[in-house]
Amino acid sequence: MDRRQFLRTSIAGVGALASLSLARRSTKAAATQGKTEGKVMLKLCSQDGRIPGKSLKEKVDNLLKWGGVGLEFGGMDVNRAKQLKADLTGTGVGVAALCFGYFSLIDPDEAKRKQAVEAVKRALDAAAEIGSTGVIVVPAFNNHPQLPYEEGRKVLVDLCPAISEHAKKVQSRILFEPLNKGEARFFNRLEQAAGVCRDAKAEGICMMGDFYHMAKEEKDDEAAFIAADGFLHHVHLASRARNLPGQDDRSFVAGFRGLKKIGYQDYCSLECGVKGDPMVEIPKSFAWMKQQWEEAVV
Amino acid sequence: MDRRQFLRTSIAGVGALASLSLARRSTKAAATQGKTEGKVMLKLCSQDGRIPGKSLKEKVDNLLKWGGVGLEFGGMDVNRAKQLKADLTGTGVGVAALCFGYFSLIDPDEAKRKQAVEAVKRALDAAAEIGSTGVIVVPAFNNHPQLPYEEGRKVLVDLCPAISEHAKKVQSRILFEPLNKGEARFFNRLEQAAGVCRDAKAEGICMMGDFYHMAKEEKDDEAAFIAADGFLHHVHLASRARNLPGQDDRSFVAGFRGLKKIGYQDYCSLECGVKGDPMVEIPKSFAWMKQQWEEAVV
Repeated sequence: MDRRQFLRTSIAGVGALASLSLARRSTKAAATQGKTEGKVMLKLCSQDGRIPGKSLKEKVDNLLKWGGVGLEFGGMDVNRAKQLKADLTGTGVGVAALCFGYFSLIDPDEAKRKQAVEAVKRALDAAAEIGSTGVIVVPAFNNHPQLPYEEGRKVLVDLCPAISEHAKKVQSRILFEPLNKGEARFFNRLEQAAGVCRDAKAEGICMMGDFYHMAKEEKDDEAAFIAADGFLHHVHLASRARNLPGQDDRSFVAGFRGLKKIGYQDYCSLECGVKGDPMVEIPKSFAWMKQQWEEAVV
Repeated sequence: MDRRQFLRTSIAGVGALASLSLARRSTKAAATQGKTEGKVMLKLCSQDGRIPGKSLKEKVDNLLKWGGVGLEFGGMDVNRAKQLKADLTGTGVGVAALCFGYFSLIDPDEAKRKQAVEAVKRALDAAAEIGSTGVIVVPAFNNHPQLPYEEGRKVLVDLCPAISEHAKKVQSRILFEPLNKGEARFFNRLEQAAGVCRDAKAEGICMMGDFYHMAKEEKDDEAAFIAADGFLHHVHLASRARNLPGQDDRSFVAGFRGLKKIGYQDYCSLECGVKGDPMVEIPKSFAWMKQQWEEAVV
């Protein structure tokens, strides 16, 4: 099964995923194929904690029943990654991003920044081991010590080549996550993170978007995703009030149109609360999103 | 025409409006009537700059044609208020809030705070003269010098009785406006402003809500307006991306349900940009909001 076929079928054998080149260039090529062949698909996924189930197997069964094809996990080490990879092999469920979060990459203290680079490398090792699409990285939440914006940005861009080198070596990538101003003042809009990826000129440096943060920060979801073209490898799904998509007034049509236009090939993953019974509401939300995806005509 | 009839007909003769008691208690009573009699109405209004027209008369004509009943103006002095009042008398268009904005009420410098109180009093004079529903007050935007939150809040509550005394004397009120975190860190949610109004125990101290800021800061529009019950005397209308209501995915139904539940009696006023031709898009937006109002079943 080649990468194109893999993307077409959306059935993510973990072994197959781990063997893929995750470099940006190849995804760019796949994206172009997607645009040409109209094979861009909505690959629904969820953070594992969101899916009901007493065991991973129960979660996998529920997810597959509802049309999901991937799971996102939190931070982990290589040993845990090996175990989870074994548990998921053959289930048909792929591993999306690992939601690590904060690494002190723009700390005023240079020693802390160096420690952060090493921690990112270990996270990349785990992400590569489990065959995930990358490591979610937040350079600073509002409550973390951090350099002023311009200085922090410069320091971050300068650290990227070392991170990227390791990412290439293990075949993984990092995914910067823009957050709303209430959580992080560092970057808020997708084009800001894309600017860092662009300036870093390092193919393991990529990014993601989150419909919840985007509702607060972006004027135009479609334009925001287009601004991230070439760097976007993960998407978080949540409504305006951070519940399940479809549980309030947040529309996904413009954003999905943007994803189709850039030939997005990766997962769209629930990171949200639920109003009501998850066993009822999650499948309802998945069905609603498939409808929104159909309405996103390009 | 008594107050109740005035509110029922929504035709706001400026003279009649100026003679109304604007005290919170009377509005509370009216609100109860509204709840009992089902007479809560959507009084559509706009900032004057948003309505096309080469003269005030042209703006008034357009507004009335589209079903609007009020205009909101920016800050002004008593002389300008007298002039505008004369220009509007007999048109059937009322004056909503005066959008003054920043007063340095939580400045670290006590002298600046005292100056701010005097400036608010002059604003109240103008608001009373023109017969508006009150003076919009922002205690600090992010770029203004300001005390830390708890200290600023205490100082603000302590200044309220002096402001309220003048407001009562001239029969007007101030309207605190909660803003999103990108614009002001002082208060962001309606319940925070309502808490200040409550602690101030001063009837000229009231507040407003803005659908644009609320999209970023409130989890539940209906609950937010209910939390402001007894203090809410102005509402700004804008979509999620701060264009005309109906120009993106922002729903007004939950918010309108909240307004109906508290028997809201004042104006809902456009403060937003426009995508497209205002002569076409504003009437379309007004019609859309009337539909949303109907859908807000209580």
